[in-house]
Amino acid sequence: MLITLEGIEGSGKSTQMKRIAAHLEKKGRRCVLTREPGDTSIGKKIRAILLDPENRELTSLAELFLYAADRAQHLGERVRPCLAAGDVVVSDRFFDATTAYQGYARGLDLEVIEKIHAMVLKDLRPDLTLLLDLPPEVGLKRAISAIESGDRTVAESRFENEALVFHEKVRQGYLALAAKEPGRFVLVDATLTPDEVTEEILVAIDARLARSKG
Amino acid sequence: MLITLEGIEGSGKSTQMKRIAAHLEKKGRRCVLTREPGDTSIGKKIRAILLDPENRELTSLAELFLYAADRAQHLGERVRPCLAAGDVVVSDRFFDATTAYQGYARGLDLEVIEKIHAMVLKDLRPDLTLLLDLPPEVGLKRAISAIESGDRTVAESRFENEALVFHEKVRQGYLALAAKEPGRFVLVDATLTPDEVTEEILVAIDARLARSKG
Repeated sequence: MLITLEGIEGSGKSTQMKRIAAHLEKKGRRCVLTREPGDTSIGKKIRAILLDPENRELTSLAELFLYAADRAQHLGERVRPCLAAGDVVVSDRFFDATTAYQGYARGLDLEVIEKIHAMVLKDLRPDLTLLLDLPPEVGLKRAISAIESGDRTVAESRFENEALVFHEKVRQGYLALAAKEPGRFVLVDATLTPDEVTEEILVAIDARLARSKG
Repeated sequence: MLITLEGIEGSGKSTQMKRIAAHLEKKGRRCVLTREPGDTSIGKKIRAILLDPENRELTSLAELFLYAADRAQHLGERVRPCLAAGDVVVSDRFFDATTAYQGYARGLDLEVIEKIHAMVLKDLRPDLTLLLDLPPEVGLKRAISAIESGDRTVAESRFENEALVFHEKVRQGYLALAAKEPGRFVLVDATLTPDEVTEEILVAIDARLARSKG
């Protein structure tokens, strides 16, 4: 089973990832936490290029292909082997992020993005996608305070430098994707307290697990 | 005008690049020498991932997308602006290398590669492609002696570590591409002396320049 967490900067994905893992292990499911970009050692080098604020000249298309490279490596080296071994894989961001950020927000052709997804994912799709939704002004305030408190580094802030309108487009992109695939997406109100968000997430995961046992 | 040089490791492209530049400048044409991967500052970071022999786990698909990312950046930041300014751009390797190495030699689906070329290049194609052809056993001997003499670093030798049969597939791939597009490709026998190779190349370039003035 593949579960993905999506959401704009500051939506609280990292906090929830750990709680999901604890919950699944308590239920006796082996769980692997992963993320995009940058889970594999090659992916970390790609992530460094993608998130470095120095790389201002990075073209949108080059950015798109770097995400595709990271994802191909991530799937080949980590996700597919873990799924084959029967683990529950929980990924902090996955292919929907590319559609939301590079497609809806940067304006790259959605058909081109779809074609790349087809090359990279083939038949694989998440069984459940949790979209942690909140207004970007709230998310960015959180992300910036995480940088100030040292939980994240400024070197990883290329996306925080984008204007608020960019993050609003990402949010709308995510919401459009969720509307298109209501069977896969569960929308979670990320303005709630972390504990309330966890509760909603765990209910969704348990329902999905029950369905797969069906 | 866009001229590309293609050929396996050790085919002598670097030597010929400088001579082409000198020839074009003598004829009063402004000439820009470039290469793939790694011409732009972002491309250099991508090149480091691609050529590092440590990155043994790099999947073929991730490799393909890294080349696409480098090419998209190269085109956007360097090739297209130079062509728009009227320069002659001479590139040491271009999209044919991806078809030969990742397609013919690694066995990735040629249709997938074609689709990515369409996304990255759009309508752009080289006006002239010089294929420096020679048997891989000769080319690799030259490439290895270049490493030993310090002209190249071992850190850039991921492809030299491939078996001879891999390089033979690359060569056959290049020859197949040349056979498909005889109007664009000029085949040069790279077992000749560097001066003889230069002569063949300059004749081909002058013919192409004359045709474009035609």
